[in-house]
Amino acid sequence: MFTGFDRNLTSYVDLSAGELTLIHEHFQHKTYRKKTLLLSSGQVCDFEAYLVKGCLKRYYIDPNGEEIILQFAVEDWWVSDMVSFTEQIPSHLYIETIEETELLQISHQSKELLFQQIPKLERVFRLLVQRAYAVLENRFFTAITASAEERYLNFIKKYPNLPQRVPQYQIASYIGITPEALSRIRASLLRNK
Amino acid sequence: MFTGFDRNLTSYVDLSAGELTLIHEHFQHKTYRKKTLLLSSGQVCDFEAYLVKGCLKRYYIDPNGEEIILQFAVEDWWVSDMVSFTEQIPSHLYIETIEETELLQISHQSKELLFQQIPKLERVFRLLVQRAYAVLENRFFTAITASAEERYLNFIKKYPNLPQRVPQYQIASYIGITPEALSRIRASLLRNK
Repeated sequence: MFTGFDRNLTSYVDLSAGELTLIHEHFQHKTYRKKTLLLSSGQVCDFEAYLVKGCLKRYYIDPNGEEIILQFAVEDWWVSDMVSFTEQIPSHLYIETIEETELLQISHQSKELLFQQIPKLERVFRLLVQRAYAVLENRFFTAITASAEERYLNFIKKYPNLPQRVPQYQIASYIGITPEALSRIRASLLRNK
Repeated sequence: MFTGFDRNLTSYVDLSAGELTLIHEHFQHKTYRKKTLLLSSGQVCDFEAYLVKGCLKRYYIDPNGEEIILQFAVEDWWVSDMVSFTEQIPSHLYIETIEETELLQISHQSKELLFQQIPKLERVFRLLVQRAYAVLENRFFTAITASAEERYLNFIKKYPNLPQRVPQYQIASYIGITPEALSRIRASLLRNK
């Protein structure tokens, strides 16, 4: 259960077996059924989680009631609403499982305690946040500057296994186009292969 | 020169006078004239900087050659292209002064050395990155869900002094509307005051 998790953390800093055991004690292992809402707009997000198995989506609801998918998360990703979690303020986001999903999750209070116990985890989480920032900035940049086809190719590159796991209309929402436009792009890419 | 800078850092962790002196030695004080390009797309960003005085903008150029302003930075903000700086890869961004601007800047190599010398700075920069992430996510969320008028009011709240310091067409670019639409919004807000 902790194999990928440990590898993930120790890719940033060296951690002894004793330190890893201490870290494990702060994380809860939870399994959620498909289509479980883990966070709703208006709630304070009290988990930061490592995704062991499964798939979920983070999204907004726009003023027209449309779901705008900000991010998918799959195995070996970290998931939270960082702003709500860190500042303990209500979220604007929804987080929902797409498949049955296993998480290792930590609360705000436990995380602060863990930083006191193992200060070098500050570095791990600084680097993790930097990576999340890079992903978000790339998403923003791509939304502004890339064509729909480029955005789809970008999606495939970032999430190679997701087209088999996620409904087409959700991929269209992530890319910011209609499902019909996505079908046309896929057909055109197949023709030109 | 270091007054605001020291206050900024010590708002996150306690730092002794000796630690602050060591930190100061890693930062270079530089003054740039108005309209100086500090970073261009394709370059690797080799500075992370605290803005002592002045104002600058971070922007993309979209496929039509239009400037898309991602962020303004004013006194007491931190500035960099975090992705390019951290991973030492070419940037997609431009960073350019709007006024004469004083920065305290550190290179990638110096910053890594500083983390070795004062590990608790990891916490400072983790919290700084989290704040940057929050600002970017709010920008993304607002761009998707808010009306042009709400985006303008959001801008005023975030940067209360900027309307006097920055040309109107740059504010329009930040908000994602034409300068004419911005004029109409401002006129309508004045009428309804």
